[in-house]
Amino acid sequence: MIGYPNGKKSNPINTKVNNKGNLGQSLENDLNRTNEFYRVHQIALVHKKPTPITVVEVDYPKRSAAKITKAFYQLPSTTDYNGIYKGIYIDFEAKQTKNKTRIPLSMIHDHQLEHLKQVLHHGGISFLIIRFSSYDETYLVEYQKIDDYLKRTKMKSIAYDWIVKSGYLIPVSYLKPCDYLSVLDELLFKGEKHD
Amino acid sequence: MIGYPNGKKSNPINTKVNNKGNLGQSLENDLNRTNEFYRVHQIALVHKKPTPITVVEVDYPKRSAAKITKAFYQLPSTTDYNGIYKGIYIDFEAKQTKNKTRIPLSMIHDHQLEHLKQVLHHGGISFLIIRFSSYDETYLVEYQKIDDYLKRTKMKSIAYDWIVKSGYLIPVSYLKPCDYLSVLDELLFKGEKHD
Repeated sequence: MIGYPNGKKSNPINTKVNNKGNLGQSLENDLNRTNEFYRVHQIALVHKKPTPITVVEVDYPKRSAAKITKAFYQLPSTTDYNGIYKGIYIDFEAKQTKNKTRIPLSMIHDHQLEHLKQVLHHGGISFLIIRFSSYDETYLVEYQKIDDYLKRTKMKSIAYDWIVKSGYLIPVSYLKPCDYLSVLDELLFKGEKHD
Repeated sequence: MIGYPNGKKSNPINTKVNNKGNLGQSLENDLNRTNEFYRVHQIALVHKKPTPITVVEVDYPKRSAAKITKAFYQLPSTTDYNGIYKGIYIDFEAKQTKNKTRIPLSMIHDHQLEHLKQVLHHGGISFLIIRFSSYDETYLVEYQKIDDYLKRTKMKSIAYDWIVKSGYLIPVSYLKPCDYLSVLDELLFKGEKHD
């Protein structure tokens, strides 16, 4: 082995390339990049909805540029993402947590869960995308399974172990850092995983 | 005829009830009320997207209440409305004009027209809802027809007469002040109007 100037050996653990390549990126960024890839390649049309804001005061320093000077965030009335894939309406909410054992349900509003249920009723596909950032793992969980889980338990959170068993690990690649449509392909066109 | 105290006859034109009952209401309000009716009665799930705003500065006077103190409107990247009806993805933009003969195309951004085209490509239904407020008439025009029109003409606007001929007058009722789904029912399930 070649000696290093300071006499220390190289540490293969510290210097190896992180093959996940994704750590620290926010889920929202990853979804935006993935949806952009889907859109440009005409695979699907999915957009994040803007954050709802109540505007109270606006200044017009120039005719062309309205400047909002007082506004407040509103609670969203629906999920953040919806769109169309192979003729199918899809709708989902995306959340990430640093927690290693569970995701608190307080992160998802009741009316968002109700919205996902209504999507199913009208013939669409609804699901959650949940990232456990400590493991850099992101799962797709169909809304129907979440609904069943919530009926069976009084827990205020969903366990990581249950999500690993009931959900689907979303593949990561450079161009599609959260390639959830590859999971939907399996679900919609190649039969379902049974737990 | 019974005489009036001031000796004038009653004027049936001025005192008759306006059977449209809708004059002066904004199209956005009418669509919100109609979509709420559809949602509550589980007919369809269609929402207006929030206006996209870039937030620059936020104050936190209390931990619970973030107050936005500097922000700007963004150009929308998609249309204002989308959702699901009988399993079908629907997507539309809504505009109203006081102009009596045409609607200027400058009211609809190019990327919104491109978005409506992409919706068709992916198997959804896309259209415009256009209100001529001078007549209190609101029309649904399928995107495909708009696309054909724009290919044939170099006009920077769409003529009222063309919209009357190529579009579909949207019925008005108290509970559904802009009942565009009744038009879609005709289009999707009972054959198409030929112009």
